[in-house]
Amino acid sequence: MRLLVKISYHGGNFMGFQIQHHERTVQYEFERILKRMHQSFVRIHPSSRTDKGVHAIEQYFHFDTHLNIAPDRWLYAFNSALPKDISVQSVEQISDTFHCRYDCVGKKYRYKVYIDENKHVFEHDTKVQLRKPVKIQPMKEAAKHFVGTHDFTSFCSQKTEVQNKVRTIYQSEVIETNDGFEFVVTGSGFLYNMVRVMVAYLILVGEGKRSGDEIHTLLEERDRKKVPHTAPAQGLYLEKIYLHENELTEEFGELIQIHKKNNRENV
Amino acid sequence: MRLLVKISYHGGNFMGFQIQHHERTVQYEFERILKRMHQSFVRIHPSSRTDKGVHAIEQYFHFDTHLNIAPDRWLYAFNSALPKDISVQSVEQISDTFHCRYDCVGKKYRYKVYIDENKHVFEHDTKVQLRKPVKIQPMKEAAKHFVGTHDFTSFCSQKTEVQNKVRTIYQSEVIETNDGFEFVVTGSGFLYNMVRVMVAYLILVGEGKRSGDEIHTLLEERDRKKVPHTAPAQGLYLEKIYLHENELTEEFGELIQIHKKNNRENV
Repeated sequence: MRLLVKISYHGGNFMGFQIQHHERTVQYEFERILKRMHQSFVRIHPSSRTDKGVHAIEQYFHFDTHLNIAPDRWLYAFNSALPKDISVQSVEQISDTFHCRYDCVGKKYRYKVYIDENKHVFEHDTKVQLRKPVKIQPMKEAAKHFVGTHDFTSFCSQKTEVQNKVRTIYQSEVIETNDGFEFVVTGSGFLYNMVRVMVAYLILVGEGKRSGDEIHTLLEERDRKKVPHTAPAQGLYLEKIYLHENELTEEFGELIQIHKKNNRENV
Repeated sequence: MRLLVKISYHGGNFMGFQIQHHERTVQYEFERILKRMHQSFVRIHPSSRTDKGVHAIEQYFHFDTHLNIAPDRWLYAFNSALPKDISVQSVEQISDTFHCRYDCVGKKYRYKVYIDENKHVFEHDTKVQLRKPVKIQPMKEAAKHFVGTHDFTSFCSQKTEVQNKVRTIYQSEVIETNDGFEFVVTGSGFLYNMVRVMVAYLILVGEGKRSGDEIHTLLEERDRKKVPHTAPAQGLYLEKIYLHENELTEEFGELIQIHKKNNRENV
């Protein structure tokens, strides 16, 4: 029986999602509980492997079990045994052919920034500080340049191992908040550090050091060295995982059709 | 030259204020910076030694220095060298006879509780969870019974070492919030774990398991075993330190006069 588990976690005290020797990770916390219940090792498969310090408002994983336990009992069992910084929202049975990573068709991230000369100690691991004001309007306009299907080689970590760096961005918005701004981005998938490199660039735009109009050229150049910064992890939230194409269509219907068309024309 | 430093910190990743071998403490973070600047050890003296996991919105310490550095340069030096979960609000020169601990005439604490069956992972180390609703009105009424001058032996840790357990409480209020309640308490001083034991008792009142009317008897019995619970540390905030009598008089003028009078009559 394959079970799909929806979770959220505060990333502040985790060394990321993925299991690492002797480190506190989200995967370790779940596999520890599953091992105790099964008396043998059970692997979990997440939709996304978030980095050290990155939060998840919504994340999924699946695992296979021979135990005859109802989904709502699994929910209770997990939440009773988990630490305070991880929560399980739902557990449901799914098809044995479903795979959280391969069936994931999109992800939404949010990045939170506050602007203040003084540190906000109660947001030290949930937002990123900018000491000086930035211009929001140029950032809003710059963010739009990411929308569409592009090769994101210039906007990911040099450690990125995947060959195909083409991704489609459905939404890329800078939103002004009471204390700063947030960057919200939804796409078909994201390369290693991609959101954090995009945010770092947008901040340079807000500081007047770079221009939004350069983004198109930077994307075409496919050169990571042209965008040298990566914003810190603690501002980043995995906000939504799209496991079904129709969820994306509902939210970004027209865009998806346009990009599919562009994609075909570009090939 | 004696300097008074006003600070705030998120207690989540500290083993409390006071220096401990090989542990991350607030005191260690400051003394590390001071040692580097003076090339010799400099002790700091706080108004309050908060426990592991307890937060401070406002806390003070003083230290003596022979360095000829202006207060605003000290502010900058501290904030540049401190980690993200500690912030310095101000630095000012004070009289060499002033002492943060002995000249402290009162403290205000706040304790934050949210009520939800489900864990709030983003508040895991800043609020305490209650899974089931409590009755706020009986808690509001019960809290009032703490106001006044009492021997708080029944409402502190059994590890409390001080002989005189008489303290005056000027304010003791339960305030309903969007997601639960807060307990705000201001007093002349607090015994070890005193606020956390008071909150734990008030929660029992909200659950209908104990009554507010018992508080007077419990205080008179001076028996810690009658109030067996201590609420968790992560909900507790040191909110204000009163270094001058007139600050207390401004906020609780009448009460202070009444309690001084009661105090004299009780002696």
